[in-house]
Amino acid sequence: MLLLHRAVVLRLQQACRLKSIPSRIYIQACSTNDSFRPQYPSLTFSGDNSSTRGWKVMGTLLGLGAVLAYQDHRCRAAQESTRIYTKEEVSSHTSPETGIWVTLGSEVFDVTEFVDLHPGGPSKLMLAAGGPLEPFWALYAVHNQSHVRELLAQYKIGELNPEDKVAPTVETSDPYADDPVRHPALKVNSQRPFNAEPPPELLTENYITPNPIFFTRNHLPVPNLDPDTYRLHIVGAPGGQSLSLSLDDLHNFPKYEITVTLQCAGNRRSEMTQVKEVKGLEWRTGAISTARWAGARLCDVLAQAGHQLCKTEAHVCFEGLDSDPTGTAYGASIPLARAMDPEAEVLLAYEMNGQPLPRDHGFPVRVVVPGVVGARHVKWLGRVSVQPEESYSHWQRRDYKGFSPSVDWDTVDFDSAPSIQELPVQSAITEPRDGETVESGEVTIKGYAWSGGGRAVIRVDVSLDGGLTWQVAKLDGEEQRPRKAWAWRLWQLQAPVPAGQKELNIVCKAVDDGYNVQPDTVAPIWNLRGVLSNAWHRVHVFVAP
Amino acid sequence: MLLLHRAVVLRLQQACRLKSIPSRIYIQACSTNDSFRPQYPSLTFSGDNSSTRGWKVMGTLLGLGAVLAYQDHRCRAAQESTRIYTKEEVSSHTSPETGIWVTLGSEVFDVTEFVDLHPGGPSKLMLAAGGPLEPFWALYAVHNQSHVRELLAQYKIGELNPEDKVAPTVETSDPYADDPVRHPALKVNSQRPFNAEPPPELLTENYITPNPIFFTRNHLPVPNLDPDTYRLHIVGAPGGQSLSLSLDDLHNFPKYEITVTLQCAGNRRSEMTQVKEVKGLEWRTGAISTARWAGARLCDVLAQAGHQLCKTEAHVCFEGLDSDPTGTAYGASIPLARAMDPEAEVLLAYEMNGQPLPRDHGFPVRVVVPGVVGARHVKWLGRVSVQPEESYSHWQRRDYKGFSPSVDWDTVDFDSAPSIQELPVQSAITEPRDGETVESGEVTIKGYAWSGGGRAVIRVDVSLDGGLTWQVAKLDGEEQRPRKAWAWRLWQLQAPVPAGQKELNIVCKAVDDGYNVQPDTVAPIWNLRGVLSNAWHRVHVFVAP
Repeated sequence: MLLLHRAVVLRLQQACRLKSIPSRIYIQACSTNDSFRPQYPSLTFSGDNSSTRGWKVMGTLLGLGAVLAYQDHRCRAAQESTRIYTKEEVSSHTSPETGIWVTLGSEVFDVTEFVDLHPGGPSKLMLAAGGPLEPFWALYAVHNQSHVRELLAQYKIGELNPEDKVAPTVETSDPYADDPVRHPALKVNSQRPFNAEPPPELLTENYITPNPIFFTRNHLPVPNLDPDTYRLHIVGAPGGQSLSLSLDDLHNFPKYEITVTLQCAGNRRSEMTQVKEVKGLEWRTGAISTARWAGARLCDVLAQAGHQLCKTEAHVCFEGLDSDPTGTAYGASIPLARAMDPEAEVLLAYEMNGQPLPRDHGFPVRVVVPGVVGARHVKWLGRVSVQPEESYSHWQRRDYKGFSPSVDWDTVDFDSAPSIQELPVQSAITEPRDGETVESGEVTIKGYAWSGGGRAVIRVDVSLDGGLTWQVAKLDGEEQRPRKAWAWRLWQLQAPVPAGQKELNIVCKAVDDGYNVQPDTVAPIWNLRGVLSNAWHRVHVFVAP
Repeated sequence: MLLLHRAVVLRLQQACRLKSIPSRIYIQACSTNDSFRPQYPSLTFSGDNSSTRGWKVMGTLLGLGAVLAYQDHRCRAAQESTRIYTKEEVSSHTSPETGIWVTLGSEVFDVTEFVDLHPGGPSKLMLAAGGPLEPFWALYAVHNQSHVRELLAQYKIGELNPEDKVAPTVETSDPYADDPVRHPALKVNSQRPFNAEPPPELLTENYITPNPIFFTRNHLPVPNLDPDTYRLHIVGAPGGQSLSLSLDDLHNFPKYEITVTLQCAGNRRSEMTQVKEVKGLEWRTGAISTARWAGARLCDVLAQAGHQLCKTEAHVCFEGLDSDPTGTAYGASIPLARAMDPEAEVLLAYEMNGQPLPRDHGFPVRVVVPGVVGARHVKWLGRVSVQPEESYSHWQRRDYKGFSPSVDWDTVDFDSAPSIQELPVQSAITEPRDGETVESGEVTIKGYAWSGGGRAVIRVDVSLDGGLTWQVAKLDGEEQRPRKAWAWRLWQLQAPVPAGQKELNIVCKAVDDGYNVQPDTVAPIWNLRGVLSNAWHRVHVFVAP
C-alpha cells in the first residue's frame, strides 16, 4: 500500500515536471515588518489582492499531494506526543542522518520521511530544518490549510520544553542590540551591521520578493524610529522654504507606486574573490530583490521646497538617520537632473509591497531611485538638500566606484572614477545550484536578469557547454515599460540534456535594450572593491546516470 | 652633408617622440562638399576660426623639418620638368620598387626619397601615392605654405599630359551615375551604393573628423537636390497643421550646434565574419566619425506642427528623398519621447563642421539623433510624421536588430527583437596597425572610445599581453557633458615594451558611466547580420629586434 502510494506520488511529480509545472510552491508575499512574528502590521495570510496579482496558489494540486502523503502516514500514532524536547535538541536534527525535525508553535515534528515528498521540493523544506516552520509558512500561505496541518500532525514526536524560552540577552552597550529579528532563511554575510541575502531557490520563486527575504544591506545599526515624531527635513532652495515633513505630510503628496529592482553594487562579489582578494562582503547571487514601492515623488517634494532644475550640474544629497558612534550618518547623492525628472520616478517611499517599510528596509521612509545602484536608495531618510557637489559621504566618494584591474590599494585614486549610479546589465542562474546533480533527459534552468537606467532586458542566452552554443531563455515577469524598465525579468529554459553527458557547464548572459552585454569573464573586470561583478554567470552540475 | 642632415632629421623625430609630440600633423577640417574640388561652398584653406577651435598647426616644427629636407634636395634640378606623363603612368608608381609619384595641378613629382622624411609619417603620404595631392592638402591645411611648395618643386619630374582628361563616362541608365566624387583616402567597401570608411591612422588624427573622410553609409543612390526648391514636409498633429519647410524656414528656427559621433551598427563587422559568415558590408574599425552638427531642434519643429508628448508610446518616422527604382525611400524612426525631449538634442541638421552638409551626408537636411545608431540619422530628409508604430521601413523592421548567436536565416524572427536605437560601449585601436612592426623601447597606442545614449566614456584599459594585465589610457578630446556625452573620446597610451618581447597582443576595452563594459570575445555576440560588434579590439604587432 505504501509502495503503491509512493509510485502515485512519483508519477504525479513526473507529470508535473513534464507539464512544466515543476514541484514548486508559489509564495504569498506578505510583510512581517522585520520578522515573522506578527507585530505592526499584523501577519496576514490573505488571499490574492491587488498587491499580489500574478501569484497563484496551486491549491488543488498541492492538496492532492498532501492527501496522498497523508495516506502514507495515517497509521502513525501520536503516542510520542508527550515527549519534551529543548530547542537545542531540535536544532541538532537537520540531516537525514540525525533526522530532520521542525517545530510549529510548541509542537515538535520529525519530517525526515516527508522531506522527499514535499510538493515544494526537498530543498525548500530543508530551509526550516532544526527550527520553526512559522517564518516559512508566512511566506508560503498555501500551507495555512487544514489538510496541511492534519498531514503535519502525523509526524508529531513531542512538545517543546515550556521553560525553554530564549533569554533576552540584550547588551545595552551593543549598538546593534536593538536590530530587528530577521527571517531564518536569509543567508547572513555579516551580522553587525546586518547584511544578508535570500537563498537562490527562494529568490526567483516570485517576481516580487517577499519583504522578509528581501536582501538587506545595512552599513550601521538599524535606528528605531517613532513614526509619530518622525520628521523629514528638506532644505529649501534660495528663496524657497525648508520643509519639516511628518509621515502624514508625506502621505498628502500624490502617491505613486512602482515596481523596482534594487541591487547592491557588490552582488556576486564572491566570484571576484575567486580571482583575487577584494575588500567587501561575500555576496553571492542574492544581493538583488524586487518590490513594489509606494510613496511621494521626490520631484514633487523638492518643488514644494522651491527647487527646480538648473543649468549647472547639481546633486540631491540624502542623509540617513542611522549613524556610527561618532555621529556620522550614512549619506549618498544623485544628480538633480534625475531627481527632478518626473519620468525618472524617484520616490520617497513609505510602503514596500503594500505594507509600511520594514525596519531593515528604512522604516519609515527611504529613497528609491529606479535603475540606480542600491547604495543611493538611502534608508531611514532624515535630510534632503541640493548641493553643487556630490555628497561628501564616505560611501559616495570613497566607496562604490569602479576601477581598472590594475589599480590596487596603494595606487587607487578615488577621485579619478565617477560614483556608481546606473548599473550595467546583469543576470544569474538560481536553479540548478553549482555542484548539484540534475536528472538526465531534460534540465530546467532558472534565473533573473536586470539592467540599470531603465534599460529593458530583451534577451537571455543560456549555454549548457560553457559558452560554445547558446539557447534563448523564456522571459517571465511583468512587461517592461520603454525607458522605465526598473524591474528585473525572471527567465527559464527547459533544455534536453545531451545524451551521454556527465556534466554540464551552464552559463547565462543577458542583453539590454541598449544592446549592452555582460563580459565573458571575471578577471578583466576585477576591481579592488569587488563591485560591478556582472560577468557571465556559470554553474557546473553533474548529470545523474 | 646629406648624411649630416639626415641625422638632424632623425634626431628631430626622436625628440618629437620623446616629448610625446609624435610625428603627426593636425588636420584642418574643411568641407569640400562631396569632393576635394571647389564646388559649393568653395574649398577653403582658412586658418583657425570658431568652428576649428582646438586644432593647432605645428607650423614651426613642420617648417623646420621641411627646410631640412629641402636642403637635402636643393641640388636636384628641374631638367626633367618637360617630360610628359599620363595619369595612368602616374598611378602605377605607388611603391618604393616602382617609385612613388604624386601630382599637384598639372605637375608630376617623384617623392620616393621624401616619403620616409615626411613629417606626418610615411603612411600619411603613401595615401596619396599614384594620384593627386590636392585631396590630402585640403585636409592638411599646413601644406599650403610657400616653403612646402618650394620643397615639393625639387621633386618635380615632369608634367601631366594635357590631353589626358578623364572622359565623363556617365551612363544615364546607371542610378549611381550622379553620385558625388569622393575623397581618395576613403577605403571603399561598396561602390554602389557608396559605403566607405577613413583609414584608421586618419580617423583618430583629429577629434572632429573632416567632412571629406567622414565615413559614408548610403543605402541607395545619392539624390541631387536643389536647395532652392527643397521642401521638408512635417505631417501635422490632429488639430495642428502640416508644415512644408524651405531651407530658409528651417534656418528661422533657433539654431543649435552640438558635437555628435555617428557609428554604423555594422562597424567592426569584419571581425564577426572571421567567426562565421554574416550578411553585410565588411566594415573595419572606421564606420564611426565625429562632426559638429548644426540645425533646428526636432522638438521645436514638431511643436510648431502641433505635436506634443503623449502618454501612449509613439514614434517619429523619417523618410529620405533617396529611393530605389520602385520608388521605395529609405526610412527609419525613433521614439517620440526622445524626439520631444529637449535634453536629447535631436537635430534637423543643415550644417556639418560649419559647412552645408556634403551631398554624401544628406544635403540639404538630415536627422542627427545623438547617442543613437547611424541608421536612424536619416539623410536627404523629405518627410517627418508621428505614428503609433515604428516606421514600416525595411531598415527599421527587417534589419538593424540584434539576435542570439544561435539564430540563423532559417530561424530568424525579426519581430522578436527591438530595433537598435542606443548603441553599446565601443572602442578600437587605430595605431599601431595589425601586423605592423613597432620599435622596441616604447610603443604608442591610439584609438577611440564611445558609448550610446549619452553615456560618457570613463576609462579605457589597454593590455599588451592579450588581456592578462591592463594599463589605463589617457583620454583626449573634449570634456563630456553629463548624460549628453554624444561624442567619442580619443585616447592614447605610451607604454614600455617589455624587454625581450618579440610580439605584442594589444587589446583595448572601454567602460562607460553606466559601468557597461565590452565583451571579451566576438563569437558569443556573433549575429547573422553582423551588427553590434563591440568585443575587445585586438591588434597583433611585431617588435623590431
